[in-house]
Amino acid sequence: MKKFILIPDSFKGTMSSKEICGIMKDSILKEFRDAEVVSVPVADGGEGSVDCFLTALKGKRVECTAKGPYFEEMKGFYGLIEGGKTAVIEMAAVAGLPLVEGCKNPLKTTTYGVGELILHAVKGGAKKIILGLGGSCTNDLGCGMASALGIEFFDDSNNKFIPTGESLSKIKKIDISNKAKELNGVQIVAMCDVDNLPYGKSGASYVFAAQKGADERAIEILDSGVKSGCNVIKECLGVDVETLKGGGAAGALGAGVVAFLGGQLKMGIDTVLETVGFEKMLENAHFVFTGEGKIDGQSLRGKVVIGVARASKKAGVPVIAVVGGAEGDMQKAYEEGVTAIFSINRMPEAFETARYKSQQNLAFAMDNLLKTLKINYK
Amino acid sequence: MKKFILIPDSFKGTMSSKEICGIMKDSILKEFRDAEVVSVPVADGGEGSVDCFLTALKGKRVECTAKGPYFEEMKGFYGLIEGGKTAVIEMAAVAGLPLVEGCKNPLKTTTYGVGELILHAVKGGAKKIILGLGGSCTNDLGCGMASALGIEFFDDSNNKFIPTGESLSKIKKIDISNKAKELNGVQIVAMCDVDNLPYGKSGASYVFAAQKGADERAIEILDSGVKSGCNVIKECLGVDVETLKGGGAAGALGAGVVAFLGGQLKMGIDTVLETVGFEKMLENAHFVFTGEGKIDGQSLRGKVVIGVARASKKAGVPVIAVVGGAEGDMQKAYEEGVTAIFSINRMPEAFETARYKSQQNLAFAMDNLLKTLKINYK
Repeated sequence: MKKFILIPDSFKGTMSSKEICGIMKDSILKEFRDAEVVSVPVADGGEGSVDCFLTALKGKRVECTAKGPYFEEMKGFYGLIEGGKTAVIEMAAVAGLPLVEGCKNPLKTTTYGVGELILHAVKGGAKKIILGLGGSCTNDLGCGMASALGIEFFDDSNNKFIPTGESLSKIKKIDISNKAKELNGVQIVAMCDVDNLPYGKSGASYVFAAQKGADERAIEILDSGVKSGCNVIKECLGVDVETLKGGGAAGALGAGVVAFLGGQLKMGIDTVLETVGFEKMLENAHFVFTGEGKIDGQSLRGKVVIGVARASKKAGVPVIAVVGGAEGDMQKAYEEGVTAIFSINRMPEAFETARYKSQQNLAFAMDNLLKTLKINYK
Repeated sequence: MKKFILIPDSFKGTMSSKEICGIMKDSILKEFRDAEVVSVPVADGGEGSVDCFLTALKGKRVECTAKGPYFEEMKGFYGLIEGGKTAVIEMAAVAGLPLVEGCKNPLKTTTYGVGELILHAVKGGAKKIILGLGGSCTNDLGCGMASALGIEFFDDSNNKFIPTGESLSKIKKIDISNKAKELNGVQIVAMCDVDNLPYGKSGASYVFAAQKGADERAIEILDSGVKSGCNVIKECLGVDVETLKGGGAAGALGAGVVAFLGGQLKMGIDTVLETVGFEKMLENAHFVFTGEGKIDGQSLRGKVVIGVARASKKAGVPVIAVVGGAEGDMQKAYEEGVTAIFSINRMPEAFETARYKSQQNLAFAMDNLLKTLKINYK
């Protein structure tokens, strides 16, 4: 009996990693009927991340009320894995861009609900929080989240308030003495695949706020707000997030997680590999299938395929990468442990046409790959 | 030691079958250094067909003078295989479209040189002629070829003449009593992958003459000329080529080969498989690689991939098809013996872009296929 591990990234804009795992599994079971197939759809921290972990680890989905982007009450959710010891939260659940479709305004939106989800989880006994940072509609430096967790922000009249993007500049003092005690001893890991700094030209506001609805003037307000907030953080908490790579993720929530909660930022793939116990999984595996929308031989850092390949190489398990496109020389990828790379494009067609056939194309590529792998088992 | 057989069709408009064999072989030897690689670039009857046979069978190229499309003296060539017993001639060598670039006129062009090449070969001792019909600039019903071989055409004043496209209607009598005696006992096989009839709406003139330079009026003259010629053939030689599928190939040279030389029309792939002794080749082979520019699950007749697959299936050798595109459901192809099909498209790109990367794309697909096949030989 052969054991296959499926651990693909999503193909951005066409297929989720969970969907890809499903298609791959179908192909495998057609050719290797008694195969053991382990699916680990890779979470990137954005929408669907909780689901990915629940698929891979068969955990439990928890629902609870929490505040949405405009402080409205809504239904939030998160996942519990490892018998409830670890909670997986996607910030997009309560502060995601799709929630503000038609009324985007990062000056006003908050991550307050994210803090509420964290609090709910730790009150329930979670000792580790995995927080996905993708797909935010906010630019509040995580001050909303912090407020929900008992951290207090004061303006120059010493009035307590909950900062949002537009009012970050008003923060003059931060007090963490009332921070929820349930957070003590809790490890917080934020999944973050971007390198952006909290503020500046490559910061949260200049790079991401436009797609969240900010115009030029708003971007300036947001950027100087984050900068000002970082200064107060340094002053009051003694934490310097100014040059923190990834600090600009999710409207500078990345910086907030580090500054307010003592969390760490980690690549999505590394978080997944560690959480699912990938090394252990590999022990009796025959094949690993991974993949991503596009593999670029020149920029492999932080890529799912490479993370998977490195770990698999150590275990001596062959890794087949199935991709939407492969650009540049792949020598480095092979050196990192990728055995072979296959593009799913059945026909010479531009992405605009091909994208609508991704599912069929992937199934076709997988079917034929499996038929090929089977040659030697006849 | 593994034995690989490479037997691809050309990828029309991008790569010749010989070029494909070269790329495939390079990939194989990178992964399986001591592999035996047998290359059989499939000839389709057009330009390069002689070369294909010489590559597959290590024969000898023969050059001799012959008449070109406008009865000018030129250097022709053909190939000798099987110790000189079989000659492979491509009609395009002396009557091909590239020879009349800038002065195309199927009313005037002749296949006379084709007859001269045949005569040269049989005088040299060839007992079998394989004649490729692709890429012609003529529409003379093979009357030029026949004339070179001693067959005589007469007009209504009983004057002997050599008919071309414009003068086919003038043939009133055909006399084969002076046909070259060296043709006796010689087997003639014409490679022909089209189904077109000699004349009519799906005939040689209406379907192919425009690309040879004929305007509407010329097409009418050519078509009625072929029709008239076929009638005289029936009358004088007792051969009915009117409904002969493939009779319209190469300006109705297909019909001429059957009528004047008692030849037979045969699919290119069948001719190749038989000539190279494919069954024998398969005996100790581990893998067959084939391919074509586009495989269409709905129209597999006469296709190289299917011909190869059928023969390989009998021998139990796996067949991997590498293609430029795969359209439709492939169930029939698998049933015929194709083990797996891989498209070479590395990126989602339209053919207009992808065509210029065919070589690299094929090499990439092959490299990764070989790496995959190697997994089980570690």
